[in-house]
Amino acid sequence: MRFDVFSLFPDVFHEYLNSSILKRAQSLKVLEVHLHNIRDWTTDHHHTTDDTPYGGGGGMVMKPEPLFAAVEDVLGAPPSCPVILLTPQGRSFNQKIAFSLAEYDRLALICGRYESVDERVRQHLATDAISIGDYVLTGGELPAMVIIDAVARLLPDVLGDPDAPQDDSYATGLLEYPHYTRPPEFRGWRVPDVLLSGNHAEIARWRRQEALRRTFTFRPDLLSTAALSRDDLSFLEALGYQPDVPIPPPTQN
Amino acid sequence: MRFDVFSLFPDVFHEYLNSSILKRAQSLKVLEVHLHNIRDWTTDHHHTTDDTPYGGGGGMVMKPEPLFAAVEDVLGAPPSCPVILLTPQGRSFNQKIAFSLAEYDRLALICGRYESVDERVRQHLATDAISIGDYVLTGGELPAMVIIDAVARLLPDVLGDPDAPQDDSYATGLLEYPHYTRPPEFRGWRVPDVLLSGNHAEIARWRRQEALRRTFTFRPDLLSTAALSRDDLSFLEALGYQPDVPIPPPTQN
Repeated sequence: MRFDVFSLFPDVFHEYLNSSILKRAQSLKVLEVHLHNIRDWTTDHHHTTDDTPYGGGGGMVMKPEPLFAAVEDVLGAPPSCPVILLTPQGRSFNQKIAFSLAEYDRLALICGRYESVDERVRQHLATDAISIGDYVLTGGELPAMVIIDAVARLLPDVLGDPDAPQDDSYATGLLEYPHYTRPPEFRGWRVPDVLLSGNHAEIARWRRQEALRRTFTFRPDLLSTAALSRDDLSFLEALGYQPDVPIPPPTQN
Repeated sequence: MRFDVFSLFPDVFHEYLNSSILKRAQSLKVLEVHLHNIRDWTTDHHHTTDDTPYGGGGGMVMKPEPLFAAVEDVLGAPPSCPVILLTPQGRSFNQKIAFSLAEYDRLALICGRYESVDERVRQHLATDAISIGDYVLTGGELPAMVIIDAVARLLPDVLGDPDAPQDDSYATGLLEYPHYTRPPEFRGWRVPDVLLSGNHAEIARWRRQEALRRTFTFRPDLLSTAALSRDDLSFLEALGYQPDVPIPPPTQN
């Protein structure tokens, strides 16, 4: 899979791309990331990439010309693959979208000033607009790295354990259960006995219930779309969950 | 404001911290970021920081001892400031939390393997657990950078325009209105006339309506918690918004 990243700060990607899982994905040849400096497609003496907003107000807005020129020069016109604008005004990135993006052979990511890219880029160049969360960042660079990281770990052979992505938080629609490793006792805090029991059915039951408990405690909004068995519902109702009462989304809370 | 970041990959932070707004914030002396390598607090010959999970299953789990030792060595026991664990099982980060974190003089961020840190770290060392979105990443490093970036731009004097944070997407409870800059016409696509009119009241009205339209189109779930005037509601109802019909959260859609 190939990512083409368009940014004014392509140099901030190198360290992260050369670490850990992303380094592994590239050495396995399942991931390529090509970085393009938008400024290389400016045509004026000052290499201008932004300007003041029409209608007034603070801040600067990324101009359309260098972005169109950069993306079309690299990807053709119209571009030969999806072009994703990273912006807080996009659809909310989630694990399901990560799985769907991992199906593509090639994706382009546009990192502008995060809030203020000329609207014509969104309307006529980008084919998708994605937000990584309900907060505002300086630029689209961290969101691009988030998307590359979340997608890369789903590519074949990148994680040591091929089943890991299916057990992930959000892949099941629930938060994941708690994890413990050695030592069995640390400062008097013991690992739950069931995890040391060797009883696989009991361990699976405990993990499911703890995933339900944790989701109910921290992210009850997820329960409305999770696949829940009758046993799951009984367990949740004993905790106080009322399936028919709408739960407000966590945003802005 | 000072961040203490605990990570197995502290080197991936340098490039981003030395770019753009974060560089500016540090040179203004309103931001300090101290990076600590968790591995420096291991005591065994192999510098072990993770181990297999109790109860079986794939993946590795970060051990508690080096994390407790690192955080307590730097911050005392109990730690002298909030200790935030970055994990998909945390509360959802948003702009309101960014504003609240910006009030602190000092914060610690723990970047573990993103999914699997021994639960005792969460229960007995961390004072908060934050997720940057409903997706799974390799580690907590990108989430830590996201939090530092989102918070740093709210610190005094970091953005050129002191009013910018209050106009941001999410600060108003709505997505932001579209932005345009020069040229007034690009490939036949014109900037909306109202923005060139010089009529500030009309511009303000257009921007409010476009923010409402965009929020209704892309993130209708935000409308249930936004502060809406009677005019706002009339405009939204003309678009088809029904304030009394619950809107499911965007998660997993």
